[in-house]
Amino acid sequence: MKKIVTFGEILARFSTDQGQRLSKSNQLTLHYGGAEANVAVSLAQLGHQTAFASKVPNNHLGQGIIQYLKAMNVATDLVQLGGERLGTYYLEVGAGNRGSQVIYDRKHSSFSQTVEHDWDFDALLSDTSILHVTGITPALSESLIKMVEALFKRAQTLNVKVSFDCNYRGKLWSQEQAGTVLRRLLPYVNICSCGELDMVYLFNYAQQPDHLTYKDKLYNYYRLLTDDYPNIEYLLSTKRENLSASHNRLTGYLYTNNEIYQSRIFDIDHIIDRVGGGDAFVAGTLHGIIKDWNPDAIVSFATAASVLKHTIKGDANLVSEEEIKSQMSSENQISR
Amino acid sequence: MKKIVTFGEILARFSTDQGQRLSKSNQLTLHYGGAEANVAVSLAQLGHQTAFASKVPNNHLGQGIIQYLKAMNVATDLVQLGGERLGTYYLEVGAGNRGSQVIYDRKHSSFSQTVEHDWDFDALLSDTSILHVTGITPALSESLIKMVEALFKRAQTLNVKVSFDCNYRGKLWSQEQAGTVLRRLLPYVNICSCGELDMVYLFNYAQQPDHLTYKDKLYNYYRLLTDDYPNIEYLLSTKRENLSASHNRLTGYLYTNNEIYQSRIFDIDHIIDRVGGGDAFVAGTLHGIIKDWNPDAIVSFATAASVLKHTIKGDANLVSEEEIKSQMSSENQISR
Amino acid sequence: MKKIVTFGEILARFSTDQGQRLSKSNQLTLHYGGAEANVAVSLAQLGHQTAFASKVPNNHLGQGIIQYLKAMNVATDLVQLGGERLGTYYLEVGAGNRGSQVIYDRKHSSFSQTVEHDWDFDALLSDTSILHVTGITPALSESLIKMVEALFKRAQTLNVKVSFDCNYRGKLWSQEQAGTVLRRLLPYVNICSCGELDMVYLFNYAQQPDHLTYKDKLYNYYRLLTDDYPNIEYLLSTKRENLSASHNRLTGYLYTNNEIYQSRIFDIDHIIDRVGGGDAFVAGTLHGIIKDWNPDAIVSFATAASVLKHTIKGDANLVSEEEIKSQMSSENQISR
Amino acid sequence: MKKIVTFGEILARFSTDQGQRLSKSNQLTLHYGGAEANVAVSLAQLGHQTAFASKVPNNHLGQGIIQYLKAMNVATDLVQLGGERLGTYYLEVGAGNRGSQVIYDRKHSSFSQTVEHDWDFDALLSDTSILHVTGITPALSESLIKMVEALFKRAQTLNVKVSFDCNYRGKLWSQEQAGTVLRRLLPYVNICSCGELDMVYLFNYAQQPDHLTYKDKLYNYYRLLTDDYPNIEYLLSTKRENLSASHNRLTGYLYTNNEIYQSRIFDIDHIIDRVGGGDAFVAGTLHGIIKDWNPDAIVSFATAASVLKHTIKGDANLVSEEEIKSQMSSENQISR
Amino acid sequence: MKKIVTFGEILARFSTDQGQRLSKSNQLTLHYGGAEANVAVSLAQLGHQTAFASKVPNNHLGQGIIQYLKAMNVATDLVQLGGERLGTYYLEVGAGNRGSQVIYDRKHSSFSQTVEHDWDFDALLSDTSILHVTGITPALSESLIKMVEALFKRAQTLNVKVSFDCNYRGKLWSQEQAGTVLRRLLPYVNICSCGELDMVYLFNYAQQPDHLTYKDKLYNYYRLLTDDYPNIEYLLSTKRENLSASHNRLTGYLYTNNEIYQSRIFDIDHIIDRVGGGDAFVAGTLHGIIKDWNPDAIVSFATAASVLKHTIKGDANLVSEEEIKSQMSSENQISR
Amino acid sequence: MKKIVTFGEILARFSTDQGQRLSKSNQLTLHYGGAEANVAVSLAQLGHQTAFASKVPNNHLGQGIIQYLKAMNVATDLVQLGGERLGTYYLEVGAGNRGSQVIYDRKHSSFSQTVEHDWDFDALLSDTSILHVTGITPALSESLIKMVEALFKRAQTLNVKVSFDCNYRGKLWSQEQAGTVLRRLLPYVNICSCGELDMVYLFNYAQQPDHLTYKDKLYNYYRLLTDDYPNIEYLLSTKRENLSASHNRLTGYLYTNNEIYQSRIFDIDHIIDRVGGGDAFVAGTLHGIIKDWNPDAIVSFATAASVLKHTIKGDANLVSEEEIKSQMSSENQISR
Ligand SMILES: [Ca+2]
Ligand SMILES: [Ca+2]
Ligand SMILES: [Ca+2]
Ligand SMILES: [Ca+2]
Ligand SMILES: [Ca+2]
Ligand SMILES: [Ca+2]
Ligand SMILES: [Ca+2]
Ligand SMILES: [Ca+2]
Ligand SMILES: [Ca+2]
Ligand SMILES: [Ca+2]
Ligand SMILES: [Ca+2]
Ligand SMILES: [Ca+2]
Ligand code: NI
Ligand code: NI
Ligand code: NI
Ligand code: NI
Ligand code: NI
Ligand code: NI
Ligand code: NI
Ligand code: NI
Ligand code: NI
Ligand code: NI
Ligand code: NI
Ligand code: NI
Ligand code: NI
Ligand code: NI
Ligand code: NI
Ligand code: NI
Ligand code: NI
Ligand code: NI
Repeated sequence: MKKIVTFGEILARFSTDQGQRLSKSNQLTLHYGGAEANVAVSLAQLGHQTAFASKVPNNHLGQGIIQYLKAMNVATDLVQLGGERLGTYYLEVGAGNRGSQVIYDRKHSSFSQTVEHDWDFDALLSDTSILHVTGITPALSESLIKMVEALFKRAQTLNVKVSFDCNYRGKLWSQEQAGTVLRRLLPYVNICSCGELDMVYLFNYAQQPDHLTYKDKLYNYYRLLTDDYPNIEYLLSTKRENLSASHNRLTGYLYTNNEIYQSRIFDIDHIIDRVGGGDAFVAGTLHGIIKDWNPDAIVSFATAASVLKHTIKGDANLVSEEEIKSQMSSENQISR
Repeated sequence: MKKIVTFGEILARFSTDQGQRLSKSNQLTLHYGGAEANVAVSLAQLGHQTAFASKVPNNHLGQGIIQYLKAMNVATDLVQLGGERLGTYYLEVGAGNRGSQVIYDRKHSSFSQTVEHDWDFDALLSDTSILHVTGITPALSESLIKMVEALFKRAQTLNVKVSFDCNYRGKLWSQEQAGTVLRRLLPYVNICSCGELDMVYLFNYAQQPDHLTYKDKLYNYYRLLTDDYPNIEYLLSTKRENLSASHNRLTGYLYTNNEIYQSRIFDIDHIIDRVGGGDAFVAGTLHGIIKDWNPDAIVSFATAASVLKHTIKGDANLVSEEEIKSQMSSENQISR
Repeated sequence: MKKIVTFGEILARFSTDQGQRLSKSNQLTLHYGGAEANVAVSLAQLGHQTAFASKVPNNHLGQGIIQYLKAMNVATDLVQLGGERLGTYYLEVGAGNRGSQVIYDRKHSSFSQTVEHDWDFDALLSDTSILHVTGITPALSESLIKMVEALFKRAQTLNVKVSFDCNYRGKLWSQEQAGTVLRRLLPYVNICSCGELDMVYLFNYAQQPDHLTYKDKLYNYYRLLTDDYPNIEYLLSTKRENLSASHNRLTGYLYTNNEIYQSRIFDIDHIIDRVGGGDAFVAGTLHGIIKDWNPDAIVSFATAASVLKHTIKGDANLVSEEEIKSQMSSENQISR
Repeated sequence: MKKIVTFGEILARFSTDQGQRLSKSNQLTLHYGGAEANVAVSLAQLGHQTAFASKVPNNHLGQGIIQYLKAMNVATDLVQLGGERLGTYYLEVGAGNRGSQVIYDRKHSSFSQTVEHDWDFDALLSDTSILHVTGITPALSESLIKMVEALFKRAQTLNVKVSFDCNYRGKLWSQEQAGTVLRRLLPYVNICSCGELDMVYLFNYAQQPDHLTYKDKLYNYYRLLTDDYPNIEYLLSTKRENLSASHNRLTGYLYTNNEIYQSRIFDIDHIIDRVGGGDAFVAGTLHGIIKDWNPDAIVSFATAASVLKHTIKGDANLVSEEEIKSQMSSENQISR
Repeated sequence: MKKIVTFGEILARFSTDQGQRLSKSNQLTLHYGGAEANVAVSLAQLGHQTAFASKVPNNHLGQGIIQYLKAMNVATDLVQLGGERLGTYYLEVGAGNRGSQVIYDRKHSSFSQTVEHDWDFDALLSDTSILHVTGITPALSESLIKMVEALFKRAQTLNVKVSFDCNYRGKLWSQEQAGTVLRRLLPYVNICSCGELDMVYLFNYAQQPDHLTYKDKLYNYYRLLTDDYPNIEYLLSTKRENLSASHNRLTGYLYTNNEIYQSRIFDIDHIIDRVGGGDAFVAGTLHGIIKDWNPDAIVSFATAASVLKHTIKGDANLVSEEEIKSQMSSENQISR
Repeated sequence: MKKIVTFGEILARFSTDQGQRLSKSNQLTLHYGGAEANVAVSLAQLGHQTAFASKVPNNHLGQGIIQYLKAMNVATDLVQLGGERLGTYYLEVGAGNRGSQVIYDRKHSSFSQTVEHDWDFDALLSDTSILHVTGITPALSESLIKMVEALFKRAQTLNVKVSFDCNYRGKLWSQEQAGTVLRRLLPYVNICSCGELDMVYLFNYAQQPDHLTYKDKLYNYYRLLTDDYPNIEYLLSTKRENLSASHNRLTGYLYTNNEIYQSRIFDIDHIIDRVGGGDAFVAGTLHGIIKDWNPDAIVSFATAASVLKHTIKGDANLVSEEEIKSQMSSENQISR
């Protein structure tokens, strides 16, 4: 079995208890997470060989990250130790009618300052079936933009599939900057997670008319994108309705071979932690693609995976294939 | 006032915090509970003299159980100290779209190894109006099957009413084994808690046709059962709709004198802990029967009791009659 | 900018964890709160100069209150240190189908025993635009009834607007006592928070006919009241539907210049803490009045403020104007 | 076996976490305790029939106290429900170089307002071998002074031994007041816990010369007291050296039949909670007296009991006779 | 680098908070530990390749153990999943004058029921320099006695050094049983951890005369043992003085080539957790032996390692070589 | 009363629970602290008007700092909001034989990037008696070196006394760099906290001979320094003996008018938190100087203040003058 490699930043996340404002909190919960690390962890729970490539400081926090990844069965050989600091962020956990708020403190992190010269791409990609990166990685530095592009090229050469999640973060760069960079990366991408807003605001496709269903609009966008980038084999995204910070509805979409597939609408109430929900969807999709399931099965599985993520504290989706399949058919009994 | 005696196993329950997987938890909450103990505790809160008969190891855990029961006003004279170990179970508390999961570690417990010779049935049943046992007790050992049967016989002789809750647990025995044993016990039972699935899979009554309402089907099953076991004066059960681990709907049913009675449908959202919900329903029913209320009042009260249980951590329903009555008419105001 | 002064009692509140009965709790959370203090804290978060006038014992609990108010940017010059004890109350926090319960232990408190002679009204009201008091204050002692009346008179003389929240508490006095006292105070009030029940049971207006809408009934009551007390410029209240302890619906009402204005109906689910929700509404209204917004904007803002309060542990509404405005248009996205 | 009855107040105690100032604490631990309750609980752990006579409010706090006492195997038939409030106190837990600090909030408590007319002394003293009261009880109200005196008289008549612990609290009354009252009670006392300071400042015996050893001084005081009150059969006290809030040294003394007995000096380091240490000493002494041990054995046992109390959070000494005996010979091995 | 394999049982340990009796605890901390697992984890922190061989149930607890070992960098390929249950134990954590108490609940565990047929010894010992087992393993079942003997023989054949820690547990078997079994194992042992009591009560050497120093007595015992079992190259033990549960003194001893070496006496005050202290000493010794340090350096390092263990919650010694070396020279500065 | 201004950085400190390694911690406690802020907070508790001048980011963490300072009665008008990030540090709390460890993550903080142009020195120093800065401030940036020098000059001109604490941090700059900068600052300093190591390694005075007492050596160093900088009126430092992370001994020294004064040796056992102990000593000294106490009284008070700091979690010394005076005479009784 070839391994899946994800490349990106992992952060310390400090989160408040429910019902507390950050400014008054004096006890915070520490989790480690980041979009690419989350995907690796999720895939490892689903039984895959995974490795995470990153850089963290050589101190007890870096050690904590290594321990976390190992516990989760993600290979850490590609995690470099060194550099200035660990990126962190603060999550004021929302509840009910008050949304969560994030304060980033991730500049100057060891990973954001890594340069191509630190890496041996062939080692990174050895024995690898899929490379997964998100748009957060190139958003971190000029040097990472170049590096991601070079890495994607090398992956293409080595027949490693490239999975990319646009993951636009307005606090990291502008839509214009992101669009420019991402359009340079798209020609190398085989599996692409991007949504309606990305299509319009990053890739500048004209807004689809309002009278169309969401699914039809998405189909049209994806059709346009695959026309422009025929290298893209799978396109995926979720539609999230925010009834409140504790109550969402989620639908998954998967596009492949000129067809779009849609999961049922999952009602997600009593949300514990929605951070990482998108990463869980990506991991679920990759799992289905690797397993060579049919698109309907993949999108159902991936959406159910994302749903379960909302019930677990921390960024990572610590669930088994069996649990996700049971969620697809919605059994909520106590099993005793 | 004569006392109510319940006879069964009490376990240490280790539960996770909400949003945590058991495999990653390093802080667990300890409660003591078990179907028969829960009924005794519940009835004690409603003002009854109750005693719990069981066996726990003679160590600080056994002592903890004695302290718990005494605090809850349940007599502990019939709790024997000795034997090998305390049965335990692990409860991974679910939330929203993820159901709770139970791992049992109850084999070889002091109670499961108790034998008839350890007990003086006449002492156990002295000054007693009702004896309550559930199907978990005979599921624990061959010796307990015999003992329950002998105890029921003795109760019949002494004019002690026998209350029995089928409480089938697939992790303890097969439907076939359970059916055989329970059918041997039924001739002694006066008050019986069993549901649609028990009727079909344990007692082998033919499945009622789908076009009937749930209530009508249940009526037919109960009619058949009381035809076969005319000693049964009351039959009771709840119908639970699992919208999610945090959101259920519950309806109570009570059958007596060839009539079936039904509570309103209670919406139970924001569930804290549903373990023991069935025991709370049984206790509520026994309370109503002892008070000689009319069946409509009994089933409403019992269902409201069960509803309140879902708002309290731990197995036991720590509520007063007044609070349950207020729940029947759904007042959720802060009282200040 | 002139300051807003609130005058009343602040209590230590001991609250249980969710899902715990008070009688079994051995860890309680301590917050400081009281209707008038809550309004002051709320207004301070909205950028106003505020001062709280009260009396607390001269010990480490009194010190804790001073520290809390200072942290929240409320001036404490008018908080006297001395007297016998700090009033306290116990809040058994409800959840889902079980409502919260309050035990008051506030008699003999330093504040309840304060007398007019302790105070210099002109200092208290110096440089003040609005004085806010609630019906809890006169409910505490004979001496406070006189004192509130005298203080209101002095405010009128000094052209300080008087804001009054009826805040009837059945555990403190009877409807008859309250009605008698409040009718003596009403002639000095410019802004009055009182609801349908107050109109009928305290002020003895005839019950409006059932066929009218809630809004129309309220309009009629307010019309009658302002006919009797033309000094009242603003009347305000909320209508709360108690679906459960965790799920309410809230609508705000504001009456001014013979017209009544109504917010949209806010669905408040997954409630963390509803204590202080009324105080947050009052503070939001005062904010809008000071800002000279139109009545529609005021009532929307005030209701959204109250909604946000339900997401925060403790009595006080620790939110900014910007967050309330965002709530008015219901954005629940994580901002990252 | 006749029972031991203790009569006094039980309080809610709110304690801080170690290293926290009370004024900044927002999480407090709730224990129930009081000198007489502590003695009853301690004796119950040592296997005695005990009952606690008191009055607590009829609410969920009063219920919590009943549950606590029952769990600890203390009979609660003599605990009356009613009155205004539960006395409370705040314990800022010291550590190392900072001592603990107590804020009392116990005035107006249900117990302090109880009057003789509420009680049936013969019922209270039925089937009783020893009645234990401390000086805190008469310090609470005029009515309790009279009541304690009357109760002691009745005990004498009924041949119930009277145990009395001077337990002087400067925050409750002056030395002068206490001396006057206690001298009225002493003629009825058979077992008396009082120390050097009590002898001088309450009972006005001349200070013994400095050149004497502590033991000799105490012998002289006790000789003088038993000369004046020949009814006193046992006199007891501990000498505590305060090296720090976490490190004390403790020696026990017992006087009987004109001889004084002394325990070894126990080093108590790493103190968890010293509240109730004196009550544990009294309970240990009463245990030894009932068991009819020799005075050397009694004082060693009682002091070892008090030492163990310092290792347990809360007021009560939750240890068995076997554990205390093992402490007498200082085994600190993990037993596995 | 060849790996070190340890073979034994790993348990779930539930420990109380400091100052709490187990019988009153409702929150327990879960750690995983066992003598052999602790040695493996400790050696992994010191930079060695280690593997733990054991059997745990195939459920979320077994998964938790796998995650723990992986996080600690111990290979888990030799951890089998299956069997009936996970052994557990309860640790009532002592403090100051009250010692810790252990309740074992480890019978019927998956590991205790493992049989030789489940294992492939050559795979277990492949590429291995040292095999470490303790006396707890053969104490668990007849089958494990045979298995350990067979495994030791196979190790001898394969030139794998055998390290054995007598680790006598009176709650598992009698001294007589243990002595018989251990004497059968000793001929295969190269590195042996056993103390004075083991020499006398398990191996039946005559008690050395009292006038000798502890070191001389130990020398004599070890001389006798190596005379009888010349295969033993290293003998090691610690002498622990129990000043209290929080304050010990520890001296390490190492015997090799007919000479005995002794560390300085370490004062260990303010103990956090002494469980696993012996395992940390063994791991430190093995580290020094592998590094080929001189005996003085080894025994100092191993004792300092054990000392540090006492400052860390849980069974395992999570410290680096650098930290232990710094402890040898006792630097307690904050490093900033 | 003129105010005291302190100028420096305030950090978020994340500390572990006792007995936990940082790498395994998932719950951290958040305190705000920094040498200069700690001195301001400490002086405010002693009744002084104080202001803290600094810069923190304009987000909920910056707000948390403002709230903390206000609660502690420190004026925040001089705390600027803006810049990139809040400096943080991680404190792995040691215990017993394991020392605490600090990881700094303070680079690029808002304060470290502040420049002279951001500040109005005359406003900063208006109505000020003492300006206090530590050597950490110039260690943070080139720009802060210049700024501190300019600020000191301006203070001299305005007759504001300058207090300076060398506070050398090897993780921030080299001894050489620090020496060069600090020697530039010394000519403006009136009150100087520096110890033996500073004298030798920063200011290059020859090491005093070993046969001298510590006090005599310190006298000689201070004599040399005041010869070179006659502007220095007070010199102060503590000598700390590190028996363990939980047990220190502390002696305070104060030099003025060519004489040296020394406190008694305080034994500090059972340490809760020693961070900020030096700042507490400085604050205690400044308090004594302002009060115009004699040097013996000052140094005793300051050392007792520092001792008490060790009993409180967090950086700040939350104690009153009365409590410190009581510590000077070592009363550790519970006050009740
Ligand atoms: Ca993330
Ligand atoms: Ca995403
Ligand atoms: Ca149960
Ligand atoms: Ca059931
Ligand atoms: Ca309030
Ligand atoms: Ca209100
Ligand atoms: Ca007490
Ligand atoms: Ca006492
Ligand atoms: Ca172990
Ligand atoms: Ca050992
Ligand atoms: Ca600091
Ligand atoms: Ca310092
Ligand atoms: Ni390290
Ligand atoms: Ni909802
Ligand atoms: Ni977590
Ligand atoms: Ni025991
Ligand atoms: Ni729902
Ligand atoms: Ni509980
Ligand atoms: Ni109640
Ligand atoms: Ni709802
Ligand atoms: Ni709070
Ligand atoms: Ni000490
Ligand atoms: Ni407790
Ligand atoms: Ni699983
Ligand atoms: Ni010690
Ligand atoms: Ni741990
Ligand atoms: Ni904000
Ligand atoms: Ni020490
Ligand atoms: Ni703190
Ligand atoms: Ni104070």
